[in-house]
Amino acid sequence: MPKINENFTKIPASYLFSEVARRVNEYKTANPTHNIIRMDIGDIKLPLPDACVDAMIRAANEQRSAVTFRGYGPEQGYEFLRDAIRNNDFRSRGIDIASDEIFISDGAKSDTGNIGEIFSIDNYVAVTDPSYPVYVDTNAMAGRAGEVNTNGMWSNLVYLQCNADNGFTPYLPEIKVDLIYLCYPNNPTGATLTKSQLACWVDYARKHGAIILFDAAYEAFITEDDVPHSIFEIEGAAEVAIEFRSFSKTAGFTGTRCGYTVVPKQVTSRNEKGENISLNSLWNRRQTTKFNGTAYIIQRAAEAVYSPEGKIQVKNLLDYYKQNSNIIRTELIKAGYTVFGGINAPYIWAKTPNGENSWDYFDFLLNKKNIVITPGSGFGHCGQGYVRFAAFGKKEDVYEAMNRLCT
Amino acid sequence: MPKINENFTKIPASYLFSEVARRVNEYKTANPTHNIIRMDIGDIKLPLPDACVDAMIRAANEQRSAVTFRGYGPEQGYEFLRDAIRNNDFRSRGIDIASDEIFISDGAKSDTGNIGEIFSIDNYVAVTDPSYPVYVDTNAMAGRAGEVNTNGMWSNLVYLQCNADNGFTPYLPEIKVDLIYLCYPNNPTGATLTKSQLACWVDYARKHGAIILFDAAYEAFITEDDVPHSIFEIEGAAEVAIEFRSFSKTAGFTGTRCGYTVVPKQVTSRNEKGENISLNSLWNRRQTTKFNGTAYIIQRAAEAVYSPEGKIQVKNLLDYYKQNSNIIRTELIKAGYTVFGGINAPYIWAKTPNGENSWDYFDFLLNKKNIVITPGSGFGHCGQGYVRFAAFGKKEDVYEAMNRLCT
Repeated sequence: MPKINENFTKIPASYLFSEVARRVNEYKTANPTHNIIRMDIGDIKLPLPDACVDAMIRAANEQRSAVTFRGYGPEQGYEFLRDAIRNNDFRSRGIDIASDEIFISDGAKSDTGNIGEIFSIDNYVAVTDPSYPVYVDTNAMAGRAGEVNTNGMWSNLVYLQCNADNGFTPYLPEIKVDLIYLCYPNNPTGATLTKSQLACWVDYARKHGAIILFDAAYEAFITEDDVPHSIFEIEGAAEVAIEFRSFSKTAGFTGTRCGYTVVPKQVTSRNEKGENISLNSLWNRRQTTKFNGTAYIIQRAAEAVYSPEGKIQVKNLLDYYKQNSNIIRTELIKAGYTVFGGINAPYIWAKTPNGENSWDYFDFLLNKKNIVITPGSGFGHCGQGYVRFAAFGKKEDVYEAMNRLCT
Repeated sequence: MPKINENFTKIPASYLFSEVARRVNEYKTANPTHNIIRMDIGDIKLPLPDACVDAMIRAANEQRSAVTFRGYGPEQGYEFLRDAIRNNDFRSRGIDIASDEIFISDGAKSDTGNIGEIFSIDNYVAVTDPSYPVYVDTNAMAGRAGEVNTNGMWSNLVYLQCNADNGFTPYLPEIKVDLIYLCYPNNPTGATLTKSQLACWVDYARKHGAIILFDAAYEAFITEDDVPHSIFEIEGAAEVAIEFRSFSKTAGFTGTRCGYTVVPKQVTSRNEKGENISLNSLWNRRQTTKFNGTAYIIQRAAEAVYSPEGKIQVKNLLDYYKQNSNIIRTELIKAGYTVFGGINAPYIWAKTPNGENSWDYFDFLLNKKNIVITPGSGFGHCGQGYVRFAAFGKKEDVYEAMNRLCT
């Protein structure tokens, strides 16, 4: 009988958000008439921008005719979308990224999950604590994380602690690491790094030969000037960083699935002979072998994000969520919570009022207030005693939830 | 500096179909006015069925309104599609598959590529030779294939030779293997297994504790009664098989991206303690951690394949390609080629007329006849001296290509 990948047996049987969904469904079944307000998973309530829907419908109609039909596209994505991204997300900020350094995908979850495949399992990996569970779980599944202890911490991972004392911005690793996952604006804490803070990480990576896996899925929520939208705004980053981007939160694509990954041609790692190997070519080999490209009509929807109408509609959508963030942050503070984030991010990170365990407070909010949040401990050991509020709901629900919390 | 996954350096730098595309583009650049007929990659010429386009447009319009908008869906796929598949592809054939044994994805390439993640790299893997390159390449990338020799053959893979002598149906492995990739109707040879032949493989798997990874991407092209559409038509297969399906060739989804994988709950593998572990739960953990579901509108398009109009439109599309297969097969035989396949598959596997090397004959057909095929050697050592013709073109192009070959 085949042997399974033993690493799978070490990780918790259930992914964080699956466990949240399970508890919510259990409560709903028992209390079908209760009005539950969801502020948990980063799903979104506003519909897809019209420009994107219109583009999808045009593309769908092209698929109806043999003359305009598109079959297999390039695994890396169509030129029209890669060029639009290059021009709008990078050139417009003075960043020189070539179209063939951009790989279109079905979302940042897939890419941040799959990127580990191009690296040896012998590398030392640093993750912030708390962090998006996909970084830890996928390294554990690959066997790169070692063994797990009763706190859910892995023997071979280097945890960069984020807590109230350091304002949820981690210190540089004390020991040499090879791969560093950074997510800014941060999920789940909403913390950011300034340009000079991020430059310290790029310097570290250049000095110690590390690669930064930079998750910029929430860059569109930045409101302050000194917060970089891309790691490639930092000089030298193109030699040491890979960046992940998503249309999910930016433009309402959670159910439409599109994202992209930037792998500059300069960024290299070492093979056994000590030669430098281009990560762009390795990622290209991975994608061409195990992925057949994102649907044509979805890529046309993503392209429409950069159209003149698309830009206005996306801005309106983001403004709405940014107002939600502000309401949640302000009201939680008024209600006496200690909060972080919410200024450059759609996430507000709040300490449980009386030091309750995160899951206990989750159950309390679900059962007594009919509000669903994400328990901070689901993001790592340092998240214990915190909960994450997401700002993607309808404004009236956000107000209603804040009312319930204050009474 | 991080170490790369060294296995990537062992595989050819270019995926088979990328190399075909490179040579074609080089020829086109040099000869921009030549009328090239493509019978290579399994791309398709007929547009998406109207029922699917209509469903996508309805779904796209739902995404326009906050009331009907869908964000993150279940990673495993929506119930409506899983139920439609269960009823139409399985129950209708008397096969009892539950909806939660069906995992919707963005295509069979991703799933056949990613399935290896749930297994230990210590397993012995058997592949037919020739076979779809994804099976070999992804096992090589994972480190399960060992070392490669100058013929492109891997030390730890067990090759099940398919050749003219055995009618391109392989014999059972002589040594014990753990995982067996089978693709029937076969890509690239167009060969099939009868029910009793496939039952021998299921028996082997049950006796030796192997798992069969059964790629049924071409089942819709079956014309003969005794050829199984699903491995689950064979008694006992649900204990030892995983099946991959695709809408790409069946319903024109090459550029729309949807497929699915069936992992029955009975199929298990062993952990280090010798316990049986459900592969359904492992695949579920893989998919929930590294994938965020297929786009909602794409799943609605796939659902429409099973609507009354959809079924008629898909049948027409398949009939068209089946006629092409028949034309190619008949004309090649008339022209003196030795051919296989093409009866229950959209692929015709032909011996090069004078024993030419596959790539030499590829270059000859490209340069002298302006016809693109796929060189058989790209599918494995036993493919040397063969080429694959695909039946997905326009009928007039198929006739024109056959004319060029006969003159």
